[in-house]
Amino acid sequence: MGEDSSEAEALIPHFEFEKLLNQDQGGRRIVLLGSIDSKPALLTAERAAFDTTPTTLDTFIASLRDVNNLGANDIYHWYLASSGPSTTAPSLKLNLIYPCTEQHVKKYSQQGTRMVTETSEIYRDYVKPYMQKKREEGRLNWVWNIIEGRTEQEDVMYREHGEEGFLILPDMNWDRKTMSSLRLLGLVERRDIWSLRDLKKQHIVWLKHMREKLLDATVKLYPELEKDQLKLYVHYQPTYYQFHIHVVSVALEAGHTQATGKAFGLENLISQLETLDGGDDAGMSDVSVTYSLGEASELWLEVFQPLKDGKGP
Amino acid sequence: MGEDSSEAEALIPHFEFEKLLNQDQGGRRIVLLGSIDSKPALLTAERAAFDTTPTTLDTFIASLRDVNNLGANDIYHWYLASSGPSTTAPSLKLNLIYPCTEQHVKKYSQQGTRMVTETSEIYRDYVKPYMQKKREEGRLNWVWNIIEGRTEQEDVMYREHGEEGFLILPDMNWDRKTMSSLRLLGLVERRDIWSLRDLKKQHIVWLKHMREKLLDATVKLYPELEKDQLKLYVHYQPTYYQFHIHVVSVALEAGHTQATGKAFGLENLISQLETLDGGDDAGMSDVSVTYSLGEASELWLEVFQPLKDGKGP
Repeated sequence: MGEDSSEAEALIPHFEFEKLLNQDQGGRRIVLLGSIDSKPALLTAERAAFDTTPTTLDTFIASLRDVNNLGANDIYHWYLASSGPSTTAPSLKLNLIYPCTEQHVKKYSQQGTRMVTETSEIYRDYVKPYMQKKREEGRLNWVWNIIEGRTEQEDVMYREHGEEGFLILPDMNWDRKTMSSLRLLGLVERRDIWSLRDLKKQHIVWLKHMREKLLDATVKLYPELEKDQLKLYVHYQPTYYQFHIHVVSVALEAGHTQATGKAFGLENLISQLETLDGGDDAGMSDVSVTYSLGEASELWLEVFQPLKDGKGP
Repeated sequence: MGEDSSEAEALIPHFEFEKLLNQDQGGRRIVLLGSIDSKPALLTAERAAFDTTPTTLDTFIASLRDVNNLGANDIYHWYLASSGPSTTAPSLKLNLIYPCTEQHVKKYSQQGTRMVTETSEIYRDYVKPYMQKKREEGRLNWVWNIIEGRTEQEDVMYREHGEEGFLILPDMNWDRKTMSSLRLLGLVERRDIWSLRDLKKQHIVWLKHMREKLLDATVKLYPELEKDQLKLYVHYQPTYYQFHIHVVSVALEAGHTQATGKAFGLENLISQLETLDGGDDAGMSDVSVTYSLGEASELWLEVFQPLKDGKGP
């Protein structure tokens, strides 16, 4: 390939940059428009994957340069750094948890995932009781504290009380300023809906109002966004069993948290309820729901794995 | 923060590496387990986003080092490189399209996205005729060629003829060997189902058979996988209007292609049909479907944007 590859290599230094067309993959890919000898050219640059061969990993720490601490909170420390000889800009972000626990190791380890089908019977016999136990363990106290105005009030971006009461919080993972990665949480006040499983035909009007109110409040807070630039969904299984709706920018890069098998579009849930067979009391508890579960999750270990193995949970 | 941050910085060189716990985000994040002073510690390192301030972008090309061409095909060239002074390993991948066209620029530019709600009326009046036009333009010839055995037969991994005929192909984006990123395509032989909109209650048995056959064939081809490690979904809008089912490893990192508003879980579609109001002919064409559309797509430009603006498409 000798001459060909040196010809190809000779093109790069002649690239004259004109404008940034796109930046994606968490900012780690850029697409530049420019020209070479007055002819248009597109250059895409992306950060390479880490080399994880054992010898490279063994010397990884020694290769770090310009380690610059940005902050720390208890056992959590974060830094900017570079690898190899000093470069103009830091090319790495580091996060140190020290000392860490077994739980941290478990959480950060590669975890297997399984697809499970939760029939209405499995929901009724095993999953609903599991949800109830979680609610009774006091795990929702932080939610009641926010809803009742005792804590985190400075984070509440919007609030409406009453029968259709709800409030809007920023998602922990949002920097609270970049519109293209906007992530909000709509938390409802009523306590009788634990998850999408409790949604019934009788809630259709309420759900449509919630949707409209969330969209209205969000574009009021961020007038640079239009309603059809927002995506609404709920998780199943959710992290906690008090009904909440995720509101994100459609421009946000979709990852695991938006994936089918985890995220259910709010509007599609509403239209599913509208066309569901049955009366006012018919609802999502009558439907088989298929979703993904981590192999380390309690629901996998205590319910679905035993069922798969032919043992009762 | 002076002393605190130097204390935090002093921890890093003492990190003794033990093992790699995880690598994700396209290989650009690694999680290392180790210890500091005999106490366990977790270090996460991730490639930083590019600095896209104008002055940095202006000097980006000049900062490139060790540009090494890996290959070229016509106008496409790809390279490894580093930024800043030479380092031990290349930290960048580059892609050059030269000379490029207007189409390339459009394709690689940031494209806006909109959420649209397609009612059964909008489907009937505008979207279905659009699909028909696409089918008549001969865009499906490549599909018929594969199904009828005229082309790409070397890619067909599994095939069954008959009323429940289908075949399995590798997805273009799969390397055909890494199990954790397995991506396959199940293409059905029958031609009367263009998209999920054509699925009716009368197809429930057929869909369940398709699901079982796809799972069976995949674990037969790849015995290292179990059926519950596979995720099945369909796209709406799909890229082409002949019914096909995506089969992916649950371990595959979920991106836009699996996101709610684009991907619909096959099992959840089946259970939605099972509980749908109506007789054998009732189906997904009766339901409002909400999904995301690129602002450059024909359906946005010709149907949904005019509707939003109060004009007829």
